[in-house]
This record gives sequence, C-alpha cells and structure tokens, in this order.
Amino acid sequence: MKDSHQDLSVLVLAGGSGTRFWPASRRRRPKQFLPLMGERSLLRRTTDRVLPLCGSAGLWVCTTSDLGAAVEAELPELPSGRILREPQGRNTAPAIAWSLSRMPEEVRDGIIVVLPADHMVSDEGAFRAVLERATEVAAVSSKVLTLGVVPDHAETGYGYLELADEPADDLGARRVVRFTEKPELETAEAFVSRGRYLWNAGIFVFRGSVMLDHLRRLQPEITATLRAIDQEPDRLAEHYAAMPKVSIDHGVMEFLDDLATLPLDCGWTDLGSWDALAGVLARDEQGMVAQGDIVALDCSDSIVYSESGTVAVLGVSNLIVVRSGDVVLIVPRGRSQEVRRLVAKLREEGREDLL
Amino acid sequence: MKDSHQDLSVLVLAGGSGTRFWPASRRRRPKQFLPLMGERSLLRRTTDRVLPLCGSAGLWVCTTSDLGAAVEAELPELPSGRILREPQGRNTAPAIAWSLSRMPEEVRDGIIVVLPADHMVSDEGAFRAVLERATEVAAVSSKVLTLGVVPDHAETGYGYLELADEPADDLGARRVVRFTEKPELETAEAFVSRGRYLWNAGIFVFRGSVMLDHLRRLQPEITATLRAIDQEPDRLAEHYAAMPKVSIDHGVMEFLDDLATLPLDCGWTDLGSWDALAGVLARDEQGMVAQGDIVALDCSDSIVYSESGTVAVLGVSNLIVVRSGDVVLIVPRGRSQEVRRLVAKLREEGREDLL
Repeated sequence: MKDSHQDLSVLVLAGGSGTRFWPASRRRRPKQFLPLMGERSLLRRTTDRVLPLCGSAGLWVCTTSDLGAAVEAELPELPSGRILREPQGRNTAPAIAWSLSRMPEEVRDGIIVVLPADHMVSDEGAFRAVLERATEVAAVSSKVLTLGVVPDHAETGYGYLELADEPADDLGARRVVRFTEKPELETAEAFVSRGRYLWNAGIFVFRGSVMLDHLRRLQPEITATLRAIDQEPDRLAEHYAAMPKVSIDHGVMEFLDDLATLPLDCGWTDLGSWDALAGVLARDEQGMVAQGDIVALDCSDSIVYSESGTVAVLGVSNLIVVRSGDVVLIVPRGRSQEVRRLVAKLREEGREDLL
Repeated sequence: MKDSHQDLSVLVLAGGSGTRFWPASRRRRPKQFLPLMGERSLLRRTTDRVLPLCGSAGLWVCTTSDLGAAVEAELPELPSGRILREPQGRNTAPAIAWSLSRMPEEVRDGIIVVLPADHMVSDEGAFRAVLERATEVAAVSSKVLTLGVVPDHAETGYGYLELADEPADDLGARRVVRFTEKPELETAEAFVSRGRYLWNAGIFVFRGSVMLDHLRRLQPEITATLRAIDQEPDRLAEHYAAMPKVSIDHGVMEFLDDLATLPLDCGWTDLGSWDALAGVLARDEQGMVAQGDIVALDCSDSIVYSESGTVAVLGVSNLIVVRSGDVVLIVPRGRSQEVRRLVAKLREEGREDLL
C-alpha cells in the first residue's frame, strides 16, 4: 500500500451542538468533548484514530468560533491554523465548503476524509484499512465516497444507503442508488433482511476540488456566500449567517449519480444517546455500567455515570443516571432519546444556566 | 383549664443518630436537624409545637455532646444550661435518667413531658390538648403516661399498647396492660380490627420524682452510674460509657402496673423513612412530591428532594431521589427502609466521608 500521508488530509467536523447527552453535554461542551468512554474525549479518540493515516500534518478540524478554544484545549499540539472556525454552525454542507475554502490549494487538490468528531469505532485497524481503500478509489477516479456500515440490527435512528445491483469495482466500491433517512421499523427490518443496505455513517472521502465542483453546481448559494466572504472579509459573520442550513447528505450526496461506498465492518456507532452508550460500555454480571463514584446495592441493567460526586443506587433496574456539573438526570433505559424534550422544556423555562 | 406553664416542663430527646434519612441525615446532622417538611427542622417544629404549653422557661433538650453545637445553632434562644449533653447516646432510659439528674429539684418535682425531636404532627392544637390532659392525670395521680396514637392502618413498624378492659378515668386515661413491639402484619391487622390497641408514640408524661423512683427500682445500674458520676465528675465519660443501652419502654414502661395512656388523634407520624415522608408531603396531580430545584417530565408517584443542585427526572415512576451534600440517592418507593443496608455497606467500605 502506498504512503497515503503525502496526499491524504482528514477533516474532523467538531462543531456539533447536540443535546442528547445532556446534562454531560452543554452548550460550551457538546458531546465531542466528553470522555464518555474513559479518559479521552470523543474528539481526541477520533483524531488519535486517524493520525496513523494522515500524520499530524494532515489533520484539520472544523468547528464553530464558540468552540474553538475547547478544540485548542483538547488538541494542544494542533497548529491553530488548522482549526477552521465557522462564525456559527450551519450544518455539514456549509462546514465542508467553508473548510475547503480555507485550505491551501495543494490540500484541496488532494484526497480529503471527512469524519464526525463524536462517533465510536471498536476495531480501529479495520476502520483505517477501509479508509485507505476509499482514499485509493477517490484518487484513481473522481468519485465521492460515503462509507456504509454493515448493519447488525434494524436501527430506525440511522439513514440507509441502498446499493446498486452491479458488482463492486476492483477496490470493492459499490454504487449507491438511494438514501433513506431514518425509516420506520418495518422498513428497516426489510432493508436489513434484503442485505443490500448499509447505514450511512456520515464519513466521506473525496478529492477536495471535485467536492467544490459539486457544491458550486448543487449548492450555488453556499459557494456564492464563500465568494462574498472573500470579497468582504469584514462582513464574515453577516454573510455566514445567510448560509443555507443543509447537510452534505441532502445538499450534495443524494444528487450524485456516481456516489460510491465501501462497506465498513468495524464496530461502529454514532453514540446517539445514553442508551447507545450503555450498549457499548463494559457491564458487570448484573448488567450494571458504572463510571465514577458509584455505590450500588441490588441493582441491575442500569448505567450510572457520575463526573463528580457520589451516586448511590439501591434496588433499581433499567435506569440511566447521569451526574454532571450541577445536574443529575434520571431516565429509564429506552427513553434517553427524549432527553431532547427535557432540554427543550428547560429552554422554554429560561433555564439557560443548565444548558 | 389551669395555667400549666407553672409546673410543666418539656424535655425533647434530640440525641438520635438514625441512618434512614441518609444521605440527608449524616453523623453530624441526624434527622432531627433536617428541614424535611419545609423551612424549619423537625427539632424546631417540635419545640415550636410545645412552647404554648411549657413556655420558653420550661423547655429542655437532651442531646449528645457531639450534637450540642447543632442544637444551639438550631435553637439559639434556648439558654445553654437547658441543653443537657450526654457524653454519648445510650438509648432513652439513660437519656431520661441523665436529664432528670441534671434538672433542678423544683423542675424534677413537677410534671415533665418527654418528646422525641423528630416526629410530625398535623393537628397541633389536638396534640397540645391531649398533652394538657395527660399533665393533669400525672399531676393528680402518681401515674406515668405514654401517649397512644389511634391507628389508621395495620402498621408493622410501630409498637402497640394494649388497653385494659376497665373504663377510662374521669380525664379519659386508660390503663395499659401490654406492649407489643413491631408485630407481624397479621397480628397488626388483628390489633387494629379489635380496636383496643394504640400505637406507642414514645411520648411520655410523668412527675420527674416518680420516674426517678421507678428508675431506681427497675434500672438500678443506671441510677448507680448517675451517683458515681456525681461522686467522680471528672470520670464522666468513662462512667457514662458503662450505662446499659436500654429504652425507657423496655426498661421501665413495660414493668409498670398502673401505666396509663391517653389516645392521640392528631395526624401523628414518626417519619421513619423517605417513604413515610412521601406519604406526608403535598403531591401534585401526578403524585409527584418535589422539593428543591426539580425538573420533571412525564413522571408520577415519586419523591424528588434536592437540597442543592438540579435534579431532572424524565419518565420515572415510584422512585425516591434524594440529593444532599455530595451524594445522590436513588431507590424505588417501598424500599427506603433498606437505606440502612446501603449505609452499612458504606461503613464496611470505609466511606466515612459519606456518613
């Protein structure tokens, strides 16, 4: 395998501000900064995972200016110029377009891997091997790739990629014919049983200049905004606020005729909720996941996560308990997706101190 | 009704160190110091409740030297001399004997009401009226009275007083023929249906000199220890440590032939656990009891009590959540009696910081 350090760059998207890991995640410390799986934050894990591929010189992080200092603190060895700060988050299509526009031409003309900062991968070797192959596909063709995770259950929380009938190319890449966002359970079950569907992992590989061409064609508002910013850099914030809020999936990928995918089978999860985290962390014989100063008696099948202070549980089952900062959250397992509702309620009630 | 201020003293027993309200109750702040029902601590409520009877000049508090400062802080207007400090807690018979021995003779020769510091009463007027009648009974006879609560359910956590067949005296006092400690459920149900049983509330009324005579006769070890302390006051702690650990019920009351009782029907509870507290506090339509900074969504029939910091609950039912100091406790309703087991486990594990 050739030395991919030379022409491979990795762009980590670290501007997200999800609320599903509240109260551990807050406005100033979203999920990617949390050490959900041990010592290292998800962002740190993500960059550590790809460094063998791109080297430290090939690593870029896109975030919002609000979170810039947090990224610097988390990745102190990363030169400041390689932290690309959006004035505000406008979803992934503007984030990728903005990042490409800030990169030097020789980087943009090379192959770029785009990764969310907050996913988990258990087999990192397998993960890198697929990324290397994807890099080769993008290098020898002008194709854009979106990696597809081989599903192990009928998940309704992910998007699905439908593969074309035609066989894979020499490097194993398959053509994607359709995206289906978060299907109903019945549809998801049919997809998984048919075997021609992969989960859309939100991991993309392309030559930067190729992606910019697609953006100019498919999202002209975005590229026009970038030109306006070039012409009036002192009106950056104002122009950026007018960026359409659109994901790269909806804004570009779904329109591509020759979108390719490589199947990824590496224990991937997007860690979408406390329930998902409970499924990944080590459990004891009673099915208990305990992080922090936890005292448990007669408990089972629960996750108790404390960043500071003691949590004592007696006789509870199927519960999620999270203690972070000044807040304790308690929610039954299976309902942690609804934490968003709780956050919405707090916002309505003006409890900005807790968000 | 005569002015009972003149010869009535109230002795509040505030040396208890139970663990059933952990983590709100700790070694240095047992249950009687907790503001479980609002602003005022149970001790403060207890003294406020009897002040109309005894006046501030008639109020005495017995506690342990460890807790003396906490009593002073809670009752700053009480002269220090009326806080009687045992070197250590040895149960109620030594506490009462010690208190009587510290009181001036004219107090000891009057009528004394002994009250635990940590009970709840909803109808305080009715409570005081019964105490006044009990005072009269004790004043005109040499009888000891133990107040008996009219049971409203077959409680297995209390002791029962069995009443004699003979009718009440002019003041409504009945003779007690037997004590039954915490009976089995079947027995408790039989007691309640037979209607000749009252709950032993641990509230006693007697002439101090009469009680001292009983103590000398029935608990000579205790009174001998008090004499030894009088003779060797510098060996106080040593002598006190040899006091037999015995309750006034087992040590004296159960042996008295003419023990009397007056029925008390005033919404009394000994608040024996978080579950008991949940039964007393105001609930909303969903059966939720919330004290402190609580955010609840889709919850029912739970008690969430926070002294500091936010507790957010989503979708939980029949749960008890207590946040106090650095500890959060979570236990299903109906199991809060088992908090003792958790405390025992912490003690075994050397977690003195949490006790």
